[in-house]
Amino acid sequence: MSTFGHIFRVTTYGESHCASVGAIIDGCPPGLNLEPSDIQVQLNRRRPGQSNLTTPRNEKDLVHLQSGIEYGVTLGTPISLLVKNEDQRPHDYSETDLYPRPSHADYTYLEKYGIKASSGGGRSSARETIGRVAAGAIAEKYLKLAYGIEVVAFVSSVGKIHLPSTVASPSSSDADNDDAQDAVSEEFKHLLATVTREQVDSHPIRCPHPETAERMTQRIVRAKDAMDSIGGTITCVIRNVPPGLGEPVFDKFEATLGHAMLSIPATKAFEIGSGFKGTEVPGSKHNDPFVKREDGRLGTKSNWSGGVQGGITNGEDIYFRIGFKSPATISQAQETAQYDGTPGSLAARGRHDPCVVPRAVPIVEAMACIVIMDQLLIQNARKTAASLLPPVTTLPSTMVLRKKTA
Amino acid sequence: MSTFGHIFRVTTYGESHCASVGAIIDGCPPGLNLEPSDIQVQLNRRRPGQSNLTTPRNEKDLVHLQSGIEYGVTLGTPISLLVKNEDQRPHDYSETDLYPRPSHADYTYLEKYGIKASSGGGRSSARETIGRVAAGAIAEKYLKLAYGIEVVAFVSSVGKIHLPSTVASPSSSDADNDDAQDAVSEEFKHLLATVTREQVDSHPIRCPHPETAERMTQRIVRAKDAMDSIGGTITCVIRNVPPGLGEPVFDKFEATLGHAMLSIPATKAFEIGSGFKGTEVPGSKHNDPFVKREDGRLGTKSNWSGGVQGGITNGEDIYFRIGFKSPATISQAQETAQYDGTPGSLAARGRHDPCVVPRAVPIVEAMACIVIMDQLLIQNARKTAASLLPPVTTLPSTMVLRKKTA
Amino acid sequence: MSTFGHIFRVTTYGESHCASVGAIIDGCPPGLNLEPSDIQVQLNRRRPGQSNLTTPRNEKDLVHLQSGIEYGVTLGTPISLLVKNEDQRPHDYSETDLYPRPSHADYTYLEKYGIKASSGGGRSSARETIGRVAAGAIAEKYLKLAYGIEVVAFVSSVGKIHLPSTVASPSSSDADNDDAQDAVSEEFKHLLATVTREQVDSHPIRCPHPETAERMTQRIVRAKDAMDSIGGTITCVIRNVPPGLGEPVFDKFEATLGHAMLSIPATKAFEIGSGFKGTEVPGSKHNDPFVKREDGRLGTKSNWSGGVQGGITNGEDIYFRIGFKSPATISQAQETAQYDGTPGSLAARGRHDPCVVPRAVPIVEAMACIVIMDQLLIQNARKTAASLLPPVTTLPSTMVLRKKTA
Amino acid sequence: MSTFGHIFRVTTYGESHCASVGAIIDGCPPGLNLEPSDIQVQLNRRRPGQSNLTTPRNEKDLVHLQSGIEYGVTLGTPISLLVKNEDQRPHDYSETDLYPRPSHADYTYLEKYGIKASSGGGRSSARETIGRVAAGAIAEKYLKLAYGIEVVAFVSSVGKIHLPSTVASPSSSDADNDDAQDAVSEEFKHLLATVTREQVDSHPIRCPHPETAERMTQRIVRAKDAMDSIGGTITCVIRNVPPGLGEPVFDKFEATLGHAMLSIPATKAFEIGSGFKGTEVPGSKHNDPFVKREDGRLGTKSNWSGGVQGGITNGEDIYFRIGFKSPATISQAQETAQYDGTPGSLAARGRHDPCVVPRAVPIVEAMACIVIMDQLLIQNARKTAASLLPPVTTLPSTMVLRKKTA
Repeated sequence: MSTFGHIFRVTTYGESHCASVGAIIDGCPPGLNLEPSDIQVQLNRRRPGQSNLTTPRNEKDLVHLQSGIEYGVTLGTPISLLVKNEDQRPHDYSETDLYPRPSHADYTYLEKYGIKASSGGGRSSARETIGRVAAGAIAEKYLKLAYGIEVVAFVSSVGKIHLPSTVASPSSSDADNDDAQDAVSEEFKHLLATVTREQVDSHPIRCPHPETAERMTQRIVRAKDAMDSIGGTITCVIRNVPPGLGEPVFDKFEATLGHAMLSIPATKAFEIGSGFKGTEVPGSKHNDPFVKREDGRLGTKSNWSGGVQGGITNGEDIYFRIGFKSPATISQAQETAQYDGTPGSLAARGRHDPCVVPRAVPIVEAMACIVIMDQLLIQNARKTAASLLPPVTTLPSTMVLRKKTA
Repeated sequence: MSTFGHIFRVTTYGESHCASVGAIIDGCPPGLNLEPSDIQVQLNRRRPGQSNLTTPRNEKDLVHLQSGIEYGVTLGTPISLLVKNEDQRPHDYSETDLYPRPSHADYTYLEKYGIKASSGGGRSSARETIGRVAAGAIAEKYLKLAYGIEVVAFVSSVGKIHLPSTVASPSSSDADNDDAQDAVSEEFKHLLATVTREQVDSHPIRCPHPETAERMTQRIVRAKDAMDSIGGTITCVIRNVPPGLGEPVFDKFEATLGHAMLSIPATKAFEIGSGFKGTEVPGSKHNDPFVKREDGRLGTKSNWSGGVQGGITNGEDIYFRIGFKSPATISQAQETAQYDGTPGSLAARGRHDPCVVPRAVPIVEAMACIVIMDQLLIQNARKTAASLLPPVTTLPSTMVLRKKTA
Repeated sequence: MSTFGHIFRVTTYGESHCASVGAIIDGCPPGLNLEPSDIQVQLNRRRPGQSNLTTPRNEKDLVHLQSGIEYGVTLGTPISLLVKNEDQRPHDYSETDLYPRPSHADYTYLEKYGIKASSGGGRSSARETIGRVAAGAIAEKYLKLAYGIEVVAFVSSVGKIHLPSTVASPSSSDADNDDAQDAVSEEFKHLLATVTREQVDSHPIRCPHPETAERMTQRIVRAKDAMDSIGGTITCVIRNVPPGLGEPVFDKFEATLGHAMLSIPATKAFEIGSGFKGTEVPGSKHNDPFVKREDGRLGTKSNWSGGVQGGITNGEDIYFRIGFKSPATISQAQETAQYDGTPGSLAARGRHDPCVVPRAVPIVEAMACIVIMDQLLIQNARKTAASLLPPVTTLPSTMVLRKKTA
Repeated sequence: MSTFGHIFRVTTYGESHCASVGAIIDGCPPGLNLEPSDIQVQLNRRRPGQSNLTTPRNEKDLVHLQSGIEYGVTLGTPISLLVKNEDQRPHDYSETDLYPRPSHADYTYLEKYGIKASSGGGRSSARETIGRVAAGAIAEKYLKLAYGIEVVAFVSSVGKIHLPSTVASPSSSDADNDDAQDAVSEEFKHLLATVTREQVDSHPIRCPHPETAERMTQRIVRAKDAMDSIGGTITCVIRNVPPGLGEPVFDKFEATLGHAMLSIPATKAFEIGSGFKGTEVPGSKHNDPFVKREDGRLGTKSNWSGGVQGGITNGEDIYFRIGFKSPATISQAQETAQYDGTPGSLAARGRHDPCVVPRAVPIVEAMACIVIMDQLLIQNARKTAASLLPPVTTLPSTMVLRKKTA
């Protein structure tokens, strides 16, 4: 389906060779000050041609707002927006069209629809994400103004080049010894707590650790020179999310977040908090003990949970990681088969991103904002409704929310 | 929300101290032969008390079908079913109720609802999954009869004890050298292609590799003896899924599957195909070249994609892995804080699973079946609709599905 | 689908010959005091055997709460409830099974599902409405406590016996003369403003006008004596609904309300406010001019709109009317055809309601409450979200909500 | 919400003063030949300026397809389309802005959103329906090609001027005598069976009975001359819908159809088949006896049900009627109050339709097509799924669909 969300609903359209790509955002709160520049800034971070590491196509990707806003203020009605496809000619026929590109969507789109766009992969095109990024920028503007929520994503690995300490290594090869296990290092905790978009954007690779960013750059250049491609991971942190978001049992916060992230093209993996590594750590070390915070609220000493417990946010920073595979389109020849099964060799023409993670950073942020926005609206509906009821007096005191500070 | 799916819709209810837990399954195809035993077999694999590695409570968990079936055949109307909670007394007040259990859902449920069940974590209770397992068993019966689809999940790690070769190790510590990278070993490919539920169930730990299963058992015993807990991972393979399932752009197959898996209690991570490891492999090695299969269809030589490309199944085996954290409830004392912030020490009473993965195997299978069932129905709606149209003649031949064999 | 609502979601199950009928209510606000008696009172008004005008079966229809409530307080988690079917034996085969009952659902259920329940009409059974009535009673309890909302439905016609002045007659047969047109009489306005459930229940026919109620009774007795049946209409008024409910453009208040009402068995017609009659009245007479109310708010002088303008409630009383056809099952012989087309004569066995409207009154009330509850939650999500934004200062003053009183 | 449908999903956007209005249509079957002219023809029937009975604004309303189509064939991906608003300047401030227009949406939009478009009624503008009409034209093209489904709507009344015999009158004023009752006359049955769009469009009023059309015209002219407005009704017939559509219990065919129709601006009433009149007719006369049709299928002798029984289509013609109130905007002065409660007199400026029903005809057809399309896709999913199961052999023969002819 091309719609995401229950109350804040984003519907996107468009593939790479049609007139435009865009989205309708339904359910945006009214009264939000919104200028095209609020959206354009994230579209610019997503668009191609930002550096010599990405495809050299230089599309402007200017957003055109169609509805739902007057005098720079949202009306509460659907916001429609679009970005024109500069080059919308249907793809010319060529010999390479006889081949479904390996690990691309040509084959599956044809199987699913019985027909496919001339560009091949249809909606699996990266251009589809323009609508998401624009919708996410709207959500982000609201979240920042109303809650001070901050969402910062960054590249945490390219190929085997990892940001130091994003996840700690097991202390030894002794599989039975987990004493020294630390799922998240102090250094990484500091990064999560402080990293800004400015830091992220200070290097085109969007890794906030300059030395690592340089090594990542070299890795991408190497892939490019080899007419090859390389994958990577993005880590994202969200700060100031209030406790209580997430809708058990099927729309738990991390389930909806994972859904959103795994719908981004080229993603193959998602983990929240300590993730896969954390499964190796015993409960006594993995549990996050509670402490009284300075503001009187209850917080947690560690945060292996990644800000979510029982599928509901607990007010701590939310952090998660997404794996992006190497781009399927590579210029070197691949031994494969045509649609009719005839074996042959295919070499992609044109120019392509050798690595998608730098440009995927704003997409991850956008999807995160869309998820939080929707979950916030649902939770606010519940809280407002409950607040109108007479106080409950018949319950044991441990079952009712009390002031948690003296 | 407590409903999952668009056409095949599962709605669950219940927490651990209420009268019963159960589900309404709406949208099941009519005419399916369905006996209580089809459901009970999976409930039995999920229920506690199966071995001395799980909680010693011995609940029978008998399914009671309420509607939607006559003479052992589904009517197409909602199937309601329930399992009684043998012990439904509200939890007695105790001193430990002053404490939110660290990394459990007590705190977040209270923050979300302003009230919580006497049992603490409300719907985060493992008993909630009974409705899922029952619904999944119904979907599985259909999928097997109509498509020959097989779903087999198994424990692939407990703590640091991993099934050999579930994911290959990088060949060297040289991060720039990825020549020898193999995301999935031959041994693991063989396991995915052949593993059966009988093999999985031949050891109580539900790991199909006897030697590893024994080491996993020792690891759990060690956790139990230490009044501690340990996490693990489950890998699942799905065979015979037809190509074409998955609904771009937001309900791509892996996005919906990830959503389903991450809604299972205690999950923190999900990856499909080569997952996180695959992000380190260049495209030239990670891509799955096409080959003509014996049945004339197009297949892929390797399957790093895990059966999904562009968010749509390609007919190859689907495999994925889920990370389960260590259970939060442990018997040893934890330094933490009370709801009001007062520091103190909490030791859980009662008996709990030291490791959830053996019992989570049927839950993973159930959610996989529910996802496939719903996606199949949606895709069948599209295919049937398209098949009723006059043939398209104006399109370039590369855009239309043709017989792919001579 | 068997689920209704977006945030307050009701899923029902059950047909007449299965073990039980019931519902899962998801999204109920937490902290609501709820006793079984709150639900039972409306189930009692719905159940058969209340008078000699309804089917003489005397089912107890006792509600059994399964989940979502502890100590008489809702937890915010799904509330599951069920009512046992006392007689759940599958219908015995008989010669009359060869015939689809005319205007009943036997034929269409068989066509839709390729299989049908032994009772024939499957989910078109009146017993299906038990889940709705129970869910509606929960919603009503909330709406009354939190908003003082009152919902009262009553029988406004049986056959040709109409409550006086429910809709005024055109003043003359001159189609071009609409001077004297009055869509709603003063007497009817008074009734809408004051009618209570006690008044409605003071006569078994549930018409609050004693003289008319008596004539309606005679009409039903005449139908019963003739082994025939008769239809009727129900009018419903809702008081104290706040302005702002309804979700344009597709989920306008009256669209969702009409959906809900037309999903009740045997309904064929719905109108709100002046309805069909109002289409004959020119705008100058049909428009509802604004006036300042005593409480300072803006109200309307007349209320032909029925409390809804532009698909959104305006704070005035909401009133609407639903048409129920004559029950299809009648005891007299009908010339019709068998499933295989063979002509023949069918006379229904058993005993059936000769008129459904008296028992349908609580069903109408229930569906109204469910609609309001869901729309309230959605609107509260929006209002709460908007209230957290900084004030909008750039808009012309006529575009922003101001205090409407000096 | 601005999205309608489950599988065939239409999302619209736009109000009267923004850049464009339009829609995203998601879930359209792939392989459908679709030209802009397929859509434009219905947009032309909806646009203003068609005759001197409608507003003299002459907007071209040209459709611009954005995505989802290549070489004139649908790809199965979202179809986005838009129509530019020729005059998109925000409304100038004026003294009349102090007044909410009586029975218009100015007041309720402001109450709902706390802000309103400068044009006043926001999405209640008739221009919002452009997206619906375009989406409906796409659905209609499919329904016609794949099923031969015909949808024809026409004006059945303007004010008190009714098409003869759309519903029969009671034969006498004796409320107890219903012997001569006929809910639908023979003449009307003939009209339903034969009426074409060409006949409907042969008169600008879109009533297929020339003499009545002329009287309706005079009635509208009279309203216009009086600076007043007048309401009316539209009747719609749908032919060749297969049996089995409709999704009990909440999405019964008539419930979903009623929802769709009551979401059209200015609608206040909906009835299917014999509707309100039919409630006065006893079951023995109202029931539709079965007969064997020439094609061997089972049909019904009469069709008071309007093609739907138990919420499911039975293969007979579907017919229904919608009531549209008189337009709220009239040029004569109205005594009303300002937003702040100050009494005063408001006279609308500009030019407005004195009666909306002629232009609403294509909107009704569009919403009907959208409903059928979505229900067809859901039912096809079920039928296809059921057809893949082994035959059921354990059921009594009366419970299973058999060939109904020798």
